[in-house]
Amino acid sequence: MRYAQIADGATKTYALVLATDDEAVSEITAFAKLENVTAARLTGIGGFSQATLGYFDRDKKQYQPFPVPEQVEVLSLVGDIALRDGAPLLHAHALVGHRDGSVTGGHLIMGRVWPTLELFVDVYSYRLQKLPDADVGIAILDLSV
Amino acid sequence: MRYAQIADGATKTYALVLATDDEAVSEITAFAKLENVTAARLTGIGGFSQATLGYFDRDKKQYQPFPVPEQVEVLSLVGDIALRDGAPLLHAHALVGHRDGSVTGGHLIMGRVWPTLELFVDVYSYRLQKLPDADVGIAILDLSV
Amino acid sequence: MRYAQIADGATKTYALVLATDDEAVSEITAFAKLENVTAARLTGIGGFSQATLGYFDRDKKQYQPFPVPEQVEVLSLVGDIALRDGAPLLHAHALVGHRDGSVTGGHLIMGRVWPTLELFVDVYSYRLQKLPDADVGIAILDLSV
Repeated sequence: MRYAQIADGATKTYALVLATDDEAVSEITAFAKLENVTAARLTGIGGFSQATLGYFDRDKKQYQPFPVPEQVEVLSLVGDIALRDGAPLLHAHALVGHRDGSVTGGHLIMGRVWPTLELFVDVYSYRLQKLPDADVGIAILDLSV
Repeated sequence: MRYAQIADGATKTYALVLATDDEAVSEITAFAKLENVTAARLTGIGGFSQATLGYFDRDKKQYQPFPVPEQVEVLSLVGDIALRDGAPLLHAHALVGHRDGSVTGGHLIMGRVWPTLELFVDVYSYRLQKLPDADVGIAILDLSV
Repeated sequence: MRYAQIADGATKTYALVLATDDEAVSEITAFAKLENVTAARLTGIGGFSQATLGYFDRDKKQYQPFPVPEQVEVLSLVGDIALRDGAPLLHAHALVGHRDGSVTGGHLIMGRVWPTLELFVDVYSYRLQKLPDADVGIAILDLSV
């Protein structure tokens, strides 16, 4: 991964370019830690050689993972970064395109990049917080804190 | 719904967090009215317990609705807000992910949130206008006014 | 196509509205040339009367195109603009929704608009460069230059 700040101001924008074999969740999280991100939103496109996506199972209160075992276009990666227990946490959803044009998608658990993932990240000075929600089973954005 | 302004300047950015049972179109529209939004774009992710999406039928000049009768991941919500007859009007398209990873999508007519919908809205001081287009049958963005 | 600058500052934001029969790739590229865009990211929604999308074939090192021969909702168009050999180059991925709610998607090769395509383009003063990658077969964003 390489990244560059491409705009400054109340909103700082970064271009992140992930390279072959980078894993998207860990790289984006590493960026967020390096830049002390407390609130961000991101969009991006590219390709994965393989990925694991998830569907949130309401009864089990956890993500049900499913593999994407082949080269796919990353047609959309939309997500945000907020603080959980003081550290930046990525929440991103991916839509991926298969050879025949069909599309699958889910919560991004793991995404192995090939050949590139081009992300734009808007970073805000605000502190967004994720708090655990016992009813749901995961931490969600809480603007009351 | 809770919302917070997270960046100021020529573009004002708001984080909107919708909660369980909130209906997305009405809540986003309520936000837009409260903040006197005249032009905005938004992206977001989250989950719906049910939704109604639409495909625009060119012959009938209206949206053909179809139900999404189950819990789905909101993999992408992309939209904009402009003025129609002086009031803010939301136009948004949603892509939703099902338990098996399959994806459906359409014009967002109704989306019941569970457990959260995390939106980022960029608000501009510009006045974007939607005008009825008789040939099409709906109001569309018109930059000539 | 009509466009208007709707925010100024370190990031300049433009609303682009494409009209019936406009071709998306050529119109967005025309905008980028007119405004001397050296770095941008975009999101948008609308409709296509027909399109050609692509899946990148790793072995052949080229896009395998597939037609979308019918009216579809453009549920998401996400992309970026960078310089290749000094001229702005669009890279965009599209997700399109069919009459039955099913979704297909790929690299945007051609998209014929009907009735509108509403895009928001953030333009940065930074110079993003795309360089050919012999291993991959296409030019990709390179932040090292």
